[in-house]
Order: sequence, then C-alpha cells, then structure tokens
Amino acid sequence: MLVLVINCGSSSVKYNLIETSDETDICKGLIERIGAVTSIVKHEPTDKKHTKHTRVISNHGEALQEIMSYLLNPDNEIISSPADIKAVGHRVVHGGEMFKDSVLIDDDVTEAIEHAFDLAPLHNPPNLKGIEAAKQHLPDVPHVAVFDTAFHHSLPPHAYLYGIPNRLYRRYKIRRYGFHGTSHYYVSRQYYKVTDKPVADTKVITCHLGNGASVAAIDGGNSIDTSMGFTPLSGLVMGTRSGDIDPSILFYIVEKEELPLNSLHALLNRHSGLLGLSGYASDMRDLISEANNGDRRCQQAIDVFCYRIKQYIGSYIASLNGCDAIIFTAGIGENSPLIRKQSLQDMEYLGIKIDDSLNQNAKSGAVQRISASDSKTEVYVVPTNEELVIAIDTAKIAQATNQSPWL
Amino acid sequence: MLVLVINCGSSSVKYNLIETSDETDICKGLIERIGAVTSIVKHEPTDKKHTKHTRVISNHGEALQEIMSYLLNPDNEIISSPADIKAVGHRVVHGGEMFKDSVLIDDDVTEAIEHAFDLAPLHNPPNLKGIEAAKQHLPDVPHVAVFDTAFHHSLPPHAYLYGIPNRLYRRYKIRRYGFHGTSHYYVSRQYYKVTDKPVADTKVITCHLGNGASVAAIDGGNSIDTSMGFTPLSGLVMGTRSGDIDPSILFYIVEKEELPLNSLHALLNRHSGLLGLSGYASDMRDLISEANNGDRRCQQAIDVFCYRIKQYIGSYIASLNGCDAIIFTAGIGENSPLIRKQSLQDMEYLGIKIDDSLNQNAKSGAVQRISASDSKTEVYVVPTNEELVIAIDTAKIAQATNQSPWL
Repeated sequence: MLVLVINCGSSSVKYNLIETSDETDICKGLIERIGAVTSIVKHEPTDKKHTKHTRVISNHGEALQEIMSYLLNPDNEIISSPADIKAVGHRVVHGGEMFKDSVLIDDDVTEAIEHAFDLAPLHNPPNLKGIEAAKQHLPDVPHVAVFDTAFHHSLPPHAYLYGIPNRLYRRYKIRRYGFHGTSHYYVSRQYYKVTDKPVADTKVITCHLGNGASVAAIDGGNSIDTSMGFTPLSGLVMGTRSGDIDPSILFYIVEKEELPLNSLHALLNRHSGLLGLSGYASDMRDLISEANNGDRRCQQAIDVFCYRIKQYIGSYIASLNGCDAIIFTAGIGENSPLIRKQSLQDMEYLGIKIDDSLNQNAKSGAVQRISASDSKTEVYVVPTNEELVIAIDTAKIAQATNQSPWL
Repeated sequence: MLVLVINCGSSSVKYNLIETSDETDICKGLIERIGAVTSIVKHEPTDKKHTKHTRVISNHGEALQEIMSYLLNPDNEIISSPADIKAVGHRVVHGGEMFKDSVLIDDDVTEAIEHAFDLAPLHNPPNLKGIEAAKQHLPDVPHVAVFDTAFHHSLPPHAYLYGIPNRLYRRYKIRRYGFHGTSHYYVSRQYYKVTDKPVADTKVITCHLGNGASVAAIDGGNSIDTSMGFTPLSGLVMGTRSGDIDPSILFYIVEKEELPLNSLHALLNRHSGLLGLSGYASDMRDLISEANNGDRRCQQAIDVFCYRIKQYIGSYIASLNGCDAIIFTAGIGENSPLIRKQSLQDMEYLGIKIDDSLNQNAKSGAVQRISASDSKTEVYVVPTNEELVIAIDTAKIAQATNQSPWL
C-alpha cells in the first residue's frame, strides 16, 4: 500500500512516501522555516534527482500544497493521481493516557489530540495542523495517528507514578509517559528479527541517542520503563535539554536570576544539555572534535552524557532482572563509536563488553553486532526508521477500515 | 574525650554527650517546638532515669541553657563542671564546595557557613544559631563543624555536574552535593570493620532510608555518586519529599493550579513523597499496615518507594562496575524487612539474593548479614550512628588543636 507519512513541527513538515508491501521509500522531503520570509524546500525521490529551493510558504496548508504539487508533477514521475496514495499516517507526539495504539483519525480522535495540547504544547498543535491540512488535500483516504507515547503504555504504575500528590495524577494526568516510542519499538523488533530471538523471553535496553535522547527497558516486547517522563525534558542529557535535575534548582535560579518561569522553561529546554555544559555546541560531532583539541568543557559534556546513559542502563538491568541486548540507534547512537564505547566502558561486571574493532568499523545504515563474542549481553547498532513504523501501522489500520463497513 | 554533639533544626536542638575513648553515650536529649507556646524537653541519660517535661524555651540560646543546666545538675550525676566537656561537635548540613572535611570553627568558618545559607535555607541558619549559642556556654573549648555534604566531596565532575549551563555552576555553584554523608560514611566503615574487607578494593552501596532517604555508591572508601543532589529534595521518594521528577511538572502545576512558586516548594518538600502518593501518611509503618488492610494507594506508595531504591542500586552497580555489599540503615532500612526484601526482589541477575529468614529475624541495633549464602553481593543491615561520627571527628580535631600551638 502506498502511504504518505507526515511529521509536522511548529515550522516544518517532513514527509515520506512509502510502499509498505516491500517497505521501500518512494520519495521523501522536508519543508523548513514555514512562516519565515523564505522557506526551504527539499524533495528527495529515491534513485532520482533531488531538488532543493526556497519558496514563500506561510503555513502548514501551503506546505502540503507544495508536497502534493511535487508528487503529482508528471516531470517527477512519482504518482499520477492523488488516488494513488491509499492512506496518510501522521506522527503525533503525545497521546496522553488515552491512546495505547495507533488509531484511525475521526472527530473524537481530533478532539483528544487537542485535549493533549496542554501535555505537549510545542508538538501536538502543529501535529494537528498537519492532520487538518492533509485531510483537505486527501479527503477520501484513511488518516491514521501514530503516537510517540503509545509504545510506553505498558509501563506499570510503580514506573509511571511520580512521588507527588496522587491528586495531581488523577486531576491532571501528571505521570511518566515516555517518548520516541516508535523508534524503541522498531529497533527492538529489528533485533528480534535479525537474531531470531523469541520476543516473549527476551530483555532488551534500547538507547535512542539523537538530538533528543531516551533509553527504554523492554521486557517480552513491552516497554516497562523509559527515561523521558511527563515531557521529553527529563532523563538523559540531550542536545539542548537538561535531562534529570534536582527540581529545587528551578527555585534557586528563579531567585538568583530573577527570571520569569517561562524563561526558565526555555533555559532548560533550549540552552541546557550538551550546549549548556560545553558552552559551545549541541551537536556531538562538534563536541568530540573540540574535546580532541583539548577543550575541557566539551570533554565534560561528553563525560556527563555517557555517564548518564551508563546509569540508565544499570538501572534498567535492575528493572528487567537481566539484559539480553543493548541497542544503540538514532544520530549519535548509529554514528558515534566513541559515545557507544564510553557509555559501556567498565561494565564487565554487568556482562557487557564491546569489541573495539566491530564498534569502530560498524557501517552506517546496517544492523550490526558490536559486542565481544564473550559478552554476556549482546550490543547492537540498529538504524531506526520511525517513518516505516508509521507507514506500516497506517496501512494495517487502513486495510481493516476498507474491509469492515462497521469501522 | 568527652564531647557534646549538637544538632539544631529550625525549632529543635538534639544533643548527645559522648565519651569517645570507648564510644559510649553518656546522655542524650531533644528539645522540640522551640519558640512555640510550650516546648517539649527530653533528657535520656544512659542507664539512668529519663525525664520529659514541657517548658517555655524561646530560642536556641535558651535551649542550650536548658541542656547545660540539666547536665550540670548534681542530682543527675552527669558532669560536675562545664570544663568536663572537652569539645563540642556541630552537625552542619551544607558545607558547599568549600568543606571537604570536618573543621575547627573560627570566624572564617562561621562566615563560610553563613555563605551557604542560600544553598540550605532551612538547615544552615539554625545550625549556625546552635554554634553561636553553644560557644556562649562553652567558650573555652574547641567547636568543630561536621558537614553532611563532606563525605561526598569525592564525587567526580561527571557525577556532580547537571546538564545545565556551565555558567550556573561557576556562578552559583549549582551542582550535586549529596547529604547524609556522616551516615553513609559510618555504615560503610562498620561494614569494612565487621567483615574485615580491605577498604581500597571494596565496592559498597549504602541505602540510608529514613524520613529523608538517599543511596550512595562507595568505591575504595570514597563516595563516587549519591542520589540526593543540589538539595535533599531529589533522588529517592521520601516521607514527604518527591525525589526525582520531570522538572517540567513544576511549570505545569504552576499554570494549572495558579500557585506561587514558594507554595510549589512546600508541595514538593512537605506534601509529596509517600504522603502525597498514599494520601494517607508519611510513615512507612502506617503505610504497610494500611496496605495490608487492602489500601491500594498505600501499596502503590510502597511499590514506587522500593522500585526507586532498586533502580538506584542498579545504576550504582553500573557506576562502580561491581558491588561487594549493599547496606541498609536508618529508620526504615534498619527496621523494615518488607522494604528491604521488596527493594531487592528479582535481582538475581545482578547477583543479589536475600535470605528471607535472616532478613525477617534481623534484630534492631546490631550489624547483621541478611543475604543468602550464595548471593554474590552481600547484603547487610547496619545501624547508623551519625552522632558518634561527629564526636570522633570532633575529638580528633580538638586533640590536634590542643597539641599544636599553630592551629
């Protein structure tokens, strides 16, 4: 089934046109700086000429217009009619407690996504804009919402409850949700497939290390804990996000710097993490290169980043009472042998040992083992593909929709 | 050496008169509700009649007056002259980055403790009041400050730095400090002594579980990580403190409940933790009894409490790359077999196995092993004695002071 996958940020639309029968990418693209003076438009059809140009695109509706025009343009030889697209899959960041799985979008779902605006004020509103725009252009096909939180719906209460008044959970649903669900799901499934491990008896810890970063503990295929919490701010140190901190720090900074609370929000979300620690950059490649040049703060940022990963792994080995495999994925996880190595350094007691040469030579884009042959726990690099998960889920739900007149 | 140990809270003074040569308690006592209409006074001389009465005590100076009168009253047969007391040891909560060890209190030290008021606004000001009051009553002996933070001065930067702008560390010293230092120190030393383990090669995780609670990772005798952070709010779920939460929760509550920030401080410090989760009590004994009666929220509070301990233990086994022993101490740690058992349940993969009968029958007040004989990691219950550590440190420094005319 040909599925269009849409991922909308506040000023961007990412898309992938995927044929799910053979899991191939037909075309992908990205429109950035929507609403700015000029927007940047990229289209990258597989095995064909890529294009990049600037254009005035003032909202998500115009972005969808641009995407459809490109896909339908006969010169590009991609699709010949909107009817070629059989379903649209939308990435939605926050499904709250409501959505434990992907769902066909109807008015109730739209309303529920709107209800979760509060929980993800930066993400859910543009997600919904994307849904509305795509529905205008493709009104006759099923639209499906795939939630970043859904895979973590299996967390038990002792993992999702915070030590705060229970009333705050009951009234406002303040609890751990976890994110990057499609990625943790996908890379764990790839691991089971490649190694032919029985899902039910396998314990896996997945480390999604990108600009945002999180770790998940997966037992018998189900997420039982994850480092991101109520929002994507907590857990690991990230590109610009603080990760876990003593909450008292907020009171202290407010008093010392006489900051309004919303500046503090920006401080922790956009000026902290690797960027804040290093005072230099949020991109791991820049930090590694400066640390190699002897910059002490860049080195410290790397050290804190890796130490936090190591601690979450230790913590989740305790949660799982075991660990068959640790999986690295996403930008840093797939591409930085140094970070993988340092995060797992001195973990022999826990049965974890990397093979330096396998780690160093792991090729980008392939599933690869990097643990030593005598490591009790296997360590793998698995490229993530969240778009493919969204496309497959979407196709599944669309098919059921077409088959059943009752849906 | 006869040492008076003083521990001042905002409305309380606790004291212990200790003979350090044979580590015996001569007398101890507690004055509570200082400044209230009536204060409660308890004196408990060892092997003698205890007294408890109410009295009007309006400040820490009057509390010290009450203590000295009691100790000097010939009827009580404790000491015959103030000169019998050779030194005074003061518990001071926050030593900031300055104090890596206990110190003789002079004007510079007093000033530094005052400097740290900001870092521990609830604790350091009464600590200093106690020092001033005790100096008036015992002006001619050495007064020594013993810091709750000092034992954790050995934390490496990757463990004490938060993922926030480095400027906030440089300017305001916002970092992980850790607390309960004298307790973590004391129980680890008791373990080395009892088991005759070489300090340098031994890896220990100490769990101080009282109304406040923290875990520490101790490598070769040095603390390398601990769960409390910049303040005693973070880490484990405690009696009324939240422990670790996603910092975004603060922004959310402020917006939803339209609370001023200082109410939020009280919410997280005094209405959260076990009390908040259960909506019933902060005392573990009450929770266990209600959970046994079928109260679901009390059970959840216990589950969250124990799960968090388990995770910190896992995390510190990763930090230490090993673990020779886990030690439980303080009110809950010394007295609750159920909490010890549940915190270490399903940890066989990590080499941790409790002996149910040893655990169940561990007697209060004694050092006891509770791990199964085939457990790779030993598990011990060790009663803490922070006052004794303060007394011994004080005696050591007082002795050096008396010997050297230069100090």
